Parts: sequence; structure tokens; C-alpha cells
Amino acid sequence: MDYGKVSLEKHYQWQGKIEVVSRVAINSRADLSLAYTPGVANSCLAIQKDILQGFQLTRRSNLVAVVTDGSAVLGLGNIGPEAAMPVMEGKCVLFKQFAGVDAFPLCIRSQKVEEIVNTVALLAGSFGGINLEDIAAPRCFEIERRLKEICDIPIFHDDQHGTAVVVLAALINALTVTGKKMEDISITINGAGAAGLAIAKILLRSGAMDIVLVDKAGIVDKELPESNWAQKELASLTNKTRKQGGLIEAVKGADVFIGVSAANVLSQNMIKSMAKDPIIFALANPIPEIMPQKALAAGAAVVGSGRSDLANQINNVLAFPGIFRGALDARAADINDEMKIAAAKAIAGIIKQEELAPDYIIPSPLDKRVAPAVAKAVERAAKII
Amino acid sequence: MDYGKVSLEKHYQWQGKIEVVSRVAINSRADLSLAYTPGVANSCLAIQKDILQGFQLTRRSNLVAVVTDGSAVLGLGNIGPEAAMPVMEGKCVLFKQFAGVDAFPLCIRSQKVEEIVNTVALLAGSFGGINLEDIAAPRCFEIERRLKEICDIPIFHDDQHGTAVVVLAALINALTVTGKKMEDISITINGAGAAGLAIAKILLRSGAMDIVLVDKAGIVDKELPESNWAQKELASLTNKTRKQGGLIEAVKGADVFIGVSAANVLSQNMIKSMAKDPIIFALANPIPEIMPQKALAAGAAVVGSGRSDLANQINNVLAFPGIFRGALDARAADINDEMKIAAAKAIAGIIKQEELAPDYIIPSPLDKRVAPAVAKAVERAAKII
Repeated sequence: MDYGKVSLEKHYQWQGKIEVVSRVAINSRADLSLAYTPGVANSCLAIQKDILQGFQLTRRSNLVAVVTDGSAVLGLGNIGPEAAMPVMEGKCVLFKQFAGVDAFPLCIRSQKVEEIVNTVALLAGSFGGINLEDIAAPRCFEIERRLKEICDIPIFHDDQHGTAVVVLAALINALTVTGKKMEDISITINGAGAAGLAIAKILLRSGAMDIVLVDKAGIVDKELPESNWAQKELASLTNKTRKQGGLIEAVKGADVFIGVSAANVLSQNMIKSMAKDPIIFALANPIPEIMPQKALAAGAAVVGSGRSDLANQINNVLAFPGIFRGALDARAADINDEMKIAAAKAIAGIIKQEELAPDYIIPSPLDKRVAPAVAKAVERAAKII
Repeated sequence: MDYGKVSLEKHYQWQGKIEVVSRVAINSRADLSLAYTPGVANSCLAIQKDILQGFQLTRRSNLVAVVTDGSAVLGLGNIGPEAAMPVMEGKCVLFKQFAGVDAFPLCIRSQKVEEIVNTVALLAGSFGGINLEDIAAPRCFEIERRLKEICDIPIFHDDQHGTAVVVLAALINALTVTGKKMEDISITINGAGAAGLAIAKILLRSGAMDIVLVDKAGIVDKELPESNWAQKELASLTNKTRKQGGLIEAVKGADVFIGVSAANVLSQNMIKSMAKDPIIFALANPIPEIMPQKALAAGAAVVGSGRSDLANQINNVLAFPGIFRGALDARAADINDEMKIAAAKAIAGIIKQEELAPDYIIPSPLDKRVAPAVAKAVERAAKII
């Protein structure tokens, strides 16, 4: 199927992939007086007295805003807020279908940190959580950090943390399959943007000791002048052996390659230079850093990609619906590292040890067991704190 | 029924009166590829090329934001954004049920003109229209004016224009019933806030020649120092005979009293001082300026109120769903005076001449004929321009 062509036709038919509906029927004056004036005043006064009552008396407890500035949409880049809307609506569809979360898209006509932060902060009282989406790095880091400081509801940048959670889940199972341990392995992450940096952070939090980040300018290092502040922040925690150079030098001897970069940048020769039984996650979309069959032919033990037509699809939809479901159910004020790691373990744990195989390290994005398991794990992790 | 008590219980059961649902089922990888990546990219690119395609490829063409700062909610006053949410959700329910318009509530945590304007303007690309709600005067006038300048979608402050449209509709029919003409009558409007000023404007645009506005400080006049800028703007168009004093002086000899003010401020003696067959719209909620039976006993020919338990209920729900339906269907960039007056005439026209009676000058808020008739009239008026 030509997905692009058919999808465009479908979009013209759908006239929007989400819809706001009423949960209350208005058929009589009594209905009107209960759902609206004068009866509604009592709910207003109850919330005025105790702002948390809003989570019980309105939709807030089940409602997430999907917010973008349209600056880094899919592989399309900076296409602007209006053009980003079909992706945001799609995201809202996934929230609803996989975890019953009401999600509403807000595309902001500004790419200034200050304006995006203000807009979201001023609206935070209308939602139970904020999912930031497709905002370019390094701006996305500052927006997320400042919103986390200001807001009393969870702020979650999916391009960072959703990706990081699913990569960690896949890696946990890939290590089991290859008989390796997180503490012992050397990991190369190609692409030091939103996803790459978040992956590095969650792997460090999960026991990884030896990570090398590579960006267009080469291996991210304390002394690399081209690095931005977010990369510099991580430089002191990574590249401990002070490797110099680019991707070729970085992957030499590595156990794991994680690509969140661009098409065809990983060669078979590079894989051959890696440690025994290398794990390759080639996540560039739609064309991966190396096609899985080529990676396997070069000696890779486990290969994952972002593609839905191949085995081991590493897809954020495994994470964000369940993570928000759990955070909302716990009425968490934040989605912290413990909750993210719990989500990753829950995703990995869907596959029984005896089912694990090189071509089955991560559940299907359509596996209906995933979101409830993630939600439960995240809710539990939230409450422990 | 104790509406307040029952309504609060219902709100706890409802857990929100609106819900965001998916219009697309995701049951297979193909579904995922069409509604989301990779297929969705084609819709994004189509909108990037032509921003108006967003009205066909996303929900934008049917979507209105209901925006408040919580500063003037119902009769409750400045209760804040979170406490305003039950009213805003109720408004969204009415939009959907009466006119099929998707409406989504956004309660802004600021009462500064600048911040409210910026927030709404930055989000305007996500909606097909903006319904401002329960924002205190005179701030609401400046917010509306500035948003109309900036935004390319309709901006409509319902407390002003929704009320004005329904009052005009009721007055058109009340004049027929009493055999009076708009050009000849003297009108007193008590309350020179958002609603009062908008009523004065629409009546002036509809041929009224003699309007006197009264506020707490007395008759609004060019030389009244307590008037705010919005009142001063209208002062030169009203009170042509330069009446001095307060409500008692204003209503003397008047044909029409329109109250958007406070409970029990109109006495039977004041009505007796009015012209023959006076028309009384006592719209303060929940307790009107005078109870209708008292007004009738004092000689009123026609009485309307905001109450659902009495005849002639003057309720905004007769106007805003159909007005936005018509504006969205016409893809109007604005809701202008012609569209508002067309809406009023459509509401008035629902009642056949032979059905008109002192206790039936305005259709029931539940009359299902109203919204489609208003939508059609508004769409036609929009396209004429």
C-alpha cells in the first residue's frame, strides 16, 4: 500500500482524527439546569474552595495536552504549528485508543522558549498532564525544565523520554538474549539531540557505565567546541576513555549501537569492528541507519528499528499512553526517572524469558497488554516516592 | 429539585462533561501507518504548502476554543480559572448538543490583557474559532478588540454578543406584540458592563435612536467621571436628551427596560412611571431585577427574564451554537454585526406571527429548530460580505 497517498485520502474523509463529545445529554430544562446554570455553580464553588476538586468535578483528571511548536516534526523538520497538527491529532488518537487518556492537541505559533513556556504554564490548570512533542533540541530541554519547575502537573517530552523508555526496554531484553550485562557493555549513541541525550541519561540511571555520544561534529566531548549546553552537560558523564573522532572510531569495540540519527550512516564494516554479538538499534525513520538484514549479515546479534514492517519495532506508542495513564491514576505531580525506568521494565517484562529471541525483544506496538502493564508499574513507582 | 445539590452529585459521577474521543480505529499496523507515521506526513506537507488545508485535514474546521480567565463567572464573580471549568465544560456541551460544534475549554491562569491575548493568539492556529467567556469588563473589550485584529478566525465574546443577539431577538418580537417600532422607542439599559454595552451597540445598529445606559454610578454620560473608556465610547451615542440621575430618572417615560444588573433593583413604581405598555427584560440571574409576576402586576405588557422556570427565557444558548455553526460553515474570518443581526432575526423568526403572544416572544432554549435556522442565516450573512 502507498501509505502516503492512501493516508492523505483518508485524512480528507476523516475531517479530523479526534472529536470533542458531550458526556451529558441535554433534553430537558432540568438537564440544562444540572449541567449548566444554575446548578453548575455548586461545582465551581467546590473547586474555588479546594482547587484539587477540579480533578473530580471536571475532565482534568483524564486530560493531557499534546503541545508542539512544529519545529521538529517526524523527519520533516520545522514545518510549523498548523502543519504539525495531523501528527498531534494522531498522537491523541493513540493516547485514547491505547490507554483511554483524553488528549487534546495544541500547536503554538511561536518557537521562542519564553512564549512556549508562558502559554503552557497559563493553561496548565485546564489539564492533568502535558505531553511536549516534536520541539527541536536544545530548546526542548529548557522548555521542559522550566515547565517542570512552574507546573503542578506532569510535563513529559515524548521525543526524549518516550524514546528513551522504549530503547531501555529493548536493551534490557537484548542483553538477556546476548548474555551481556548493562554494567559491562560499551554503548555508542549516534545523534545527540533530544532522543540521544535522553537515551544516554536513562541508560546511565540504569547502570550503564560506558557511553559514547556522537553527533554531526563527532564524538561529544568536554572539549568539543561545537557542542551545545545540553550536550556539554552530558559530556562529563560519557566518553570516559576520551575517544576522539567520529562514528567509525566510536563504534570500534562497542557492544551496542543506538542510532537516532539519519539514513544509512552505519556500514557493515563498522558493525564488523564492534565487540562480539553486537546489538544494533537503527531508529532513523523511515530509512534506518542500516537496514536490519544488512546488519544481521554483518554479524549483529540483535537488531531493532523504528519500522513497522520489520521485527523489533522500537515505537514510542509502547510507552507514552501507559506512562500518562499511570501518572494520571496516581495523580502524580511529575513523571520522574523512577517512573520511566519502571515503565521500561514493564514493557520488557511483557515478553516471557522463554519467548525472548533475537527477533522478539520488544512487544508489538499493537500488543494490548502493554499499556495496562506500564500504567500499573508507573502508578506504583509514583506512589513509592 | 435542589439543582445545586443534585448538580454537584452529578458532576462527581460525570467526571467531566466533555470527552476527547478518536474518530479513527487503530487495530492493525496498517491503521497505525495511515493515521500516524509514516502516512500522516503527506497531510502535514499538504498543510505546510497551503495552511488552509488544515481546515480539511484536521478537526480545525469544526473546533472552537471556549476561553476564560475566570474573572466574571456566572453571578459568582472572580473565582479563578480552575473554578470556572465546570461552566466552560457546560458551554462546550451546549455547543456540541445544539450545533454539532466541537468545543474545548481553556482556562487561563492570568487576568492580564497582554497574557490572555498572547496565549489565545498563539493557539489560534489550532482552532476554527474562539469563544471568549466570563471575562470581566472593561478588560474583555480590549482582549476581544486586539484578538480580532491579530487572528484570522472568528473571535466572539459571548457575554457581550450572545446576550445582545438574544435580547435583540426578544425585543423584535416584543415590539410586534406591543405594536411599537424600534425607531420610536426609548430604551433604558441598566448595567453598563460587557452585556449592557453590547446590547446598546446592537440596538443602535438595529435602528434604536434613544438609549439610556445606567450603571452603579448613575446614567452613563459624556461628563460622568466614573465611566470607564468603554462606557465613554458609548456615552456620545446614548442619552441624547441628557437625562441626569439614576435608574429612577432613566426609566421615567421609557418604553423598554433591559436589566443586566442585579436582583430586585426595579420597583413596581418605576414600571408605573414608564410609557404605556412597557417591555421589561429583567435578566439578572438567578434573581431578576424584578420578578415577572410583579412586573406584570405593575402594568408591564411583556416580561422576559433569564430564568428557565418562567416564560420568555432570554438565554444565550439560543445564539452561540448556531452563530459558530454558521461562521464555521462559511469559514468566516470574523463574526461581524451583520451576522449577529441576522442571528437575532432568525431567532425571532422561529415564532410565527400568529403564535406571538406576551408570554411567547422567544423560543425555548430547547427548541431544536433554532440553531439550524441561526446557522443558516449567519452563514448567508457571512457570505454576502
